[in-house]
Amino acid sequence: MFNKVVIFGVGLIGGSFARALRHAGVVTTLVGVGRSPQAMARALELGIIDQVAASVQDAMAGADLVLIAAPVAQTAPVLASLLPYLEAGTVVTDAGSTKSDVVAAARAVMKERVGQFVPGHPIAGRETNGPDAAIVDLYHGKKTVLTPLPENAAADIDRVAAAWSACGAIIHRLTPQEHDTVFASVSHLPHLLAYALVDDIARKPHAGLLFQYAASGFRDFTRIAGSSPEMWRDISLANQSALLGELDAYLAQLTAIRAMLANGDGAAIEAVYANAQRARCRWIEAIETAEAPPAQDSSPE
Amino acid sequence: MFNKVVIFGVGLIGGSFARALRHAGVVTTLVGVGRSPQAMARALELGIIDQVAASVQDAMAGADLVLIAAPVAQTAPVLASLLPYLEAGTVVTDAGSTKSDVVAAARAVMKERVGQFVPGHPIAGRETNGPDAAIVDLYHGKKTVLTPLPENAAADIDRVAAAWSACGAIIHRLTPQEHDTVFASVSHLPHLLAYALVDDIARKPHAGLLFQYAASGFRDFTRIAGSSPEMWRDISLANQSALLGELDAYLAQLTAIRAMLANGDGAAIEAVYANAQRARCRWIEAIETAEAPPAQDSSPE
Repeated sequence: MFNKVVIFGVGLIGGSFARALRHAGVVTTLVGVGRSPQAMARALELGIIDQVAASVQDAMAGADLVLIAAPVAQTAPVLASLLPYLEAGTVVTDAGSTKSDVVAAARAVMKERVGQFVPGHPIAGRETNGPDAAIVDLYHGKKTVLTPLPENAAADIDRVAAAWSACGAIIHRLTPQEHDTVFASVSHLPHLLAYALVDDIARKPHAGLLFQYAASGFRDFTRIAGSSPEMWRDISLANQSALLGELDAYLAQLTAIRAMLANGDGAAIEAVYANAQRARCRWIEAIETAEAPPAQDSSPE
Repeated sequence: MFNKVVIFGVGLIGGSFARALRHAGVVTTLVGVGRSPQAMARALELGIIDQVAASVQDAMAGADLVLIAAPVAQTAPVLASLLPYLEAGTVVTDAGSTKSDVVAAARAVMKERVGQFVPGHPIAGRETNGPDAAIVDLYHGKKTVLTPLPENAAADIDRVAAAWSACGAIIHRLTPQEHDTVFASVSHLPHLLAYALVDDIARKPHAGLLFQYAASGFRDFTRIAGSSPEMWRDISLANQSALLGELDAYLAQLTAIRAMLANGDGAAIEAVYANAQRARCRWIEAIETAEAPPAQDSSPE
């Protein structure tokens, strides 16, 4: 049970966290902090938060838990703003899509108090944003990855895990480095590739004709290119090293496939396509099994 | 109105065409021809076709319209098998995803009778296949591109267009070369890129960990990598030249973005991402406008 939870950034991520905690009945007071007075007023109007903080100092007074749900590049300034008012009993966490840079920022800003910061990343999102996009079940059945620091107290990690569990999330743990390598591969690179394709097509002289014939496959492939450019610029830069590694591996893969295609090597092309199709099929089966509702009990009358 | 329509390959594409023609009430007899006796028996059992042809000769006798709905590499052998029985009043069309190679195959096989072949490509599909995947509304509101030949009679083009219109499709016309360039860009390249990414990840030593954290963005981006590897091998080879051109443009684009990332050039990265996001947003708005149901009439009582 949380007496006071403070959320920096009450958009899709922070707002959905607030709605889920409220729905679970585990929080007494939800306080919002944000740069946009309009967004904060809207979050209040929608009942996502109980109060808009008059100041960071007011917000932090007596807080049990603080979630930073702002673009990753904002983590250091937000931590610097709250540090002077950080009480000994408060745990701070974040929702950033990259972790090594967030941890580096937290160490640089918080120094010997970094143990009060438990880094996290809820694996959920949509293309919409702002308080109106916040929904109660965004995290339900989704993973939240925590990347705890050696300095974190077990009780503080548990407190953050308990909040996300109350939102319906399944808690996983990785090191910050593992996290960033994994997400460079399965999230950051696909975003870069989708943006690159749409930009490539949009700059062709016959772009209008091309878009006219783009169909459902193209729509799904490029859905993630509808995401916020600023957010994904920040993520790309924050995870530069791992993303470059994944991009280089992919460029090597494309260069190899280009040679197969130029040589008319149908067997080699089919081997790549078939391996991908099988792997994706196994993956889809695994998530569908994991996400299937439990078998219904036969209820006695 | 068609007296007899013959379909070579009664899977998703051919079967959905049959179901839609039947639903529209524009065909008396639907005859199926195929390599798999099981699939043909299933199509008959499902009521997709009225008859399984005893032979190609029987199938072709008195046919008004023939649809070849087989992998593009099968176009030449299928045309060669039916040519000896092709009556003067029969029009043949196809549903292949590439057109230049299909036209070349048709010219090589049919020679002076190529005027009876009107090439086509319905822009619709799903990852499922076989007669059980066939649905009545697969083509409803979707485009069918015809790439007529100079030798085609206007009445024959109209006959093919009428059949697709009866299926609910919207008829477009391109040259075979225009068609192949357009689809290399918005369909064939995205398939290659999705297959390449999944294969790349699946062959990494820590593939299991990676797939564990892949989420909805990855699922949508790679949906087309669930498609038939044989079919897409054939399409890739059939459209080799245009696809190589698009792949090279994309490799140049990725190489440029790699340099931006290596240089930490956030402004340049954001410009690419933002241009893509704006272009995709405009495109989605355009299709949603085009696909919106007409405003409902206020009906008198």
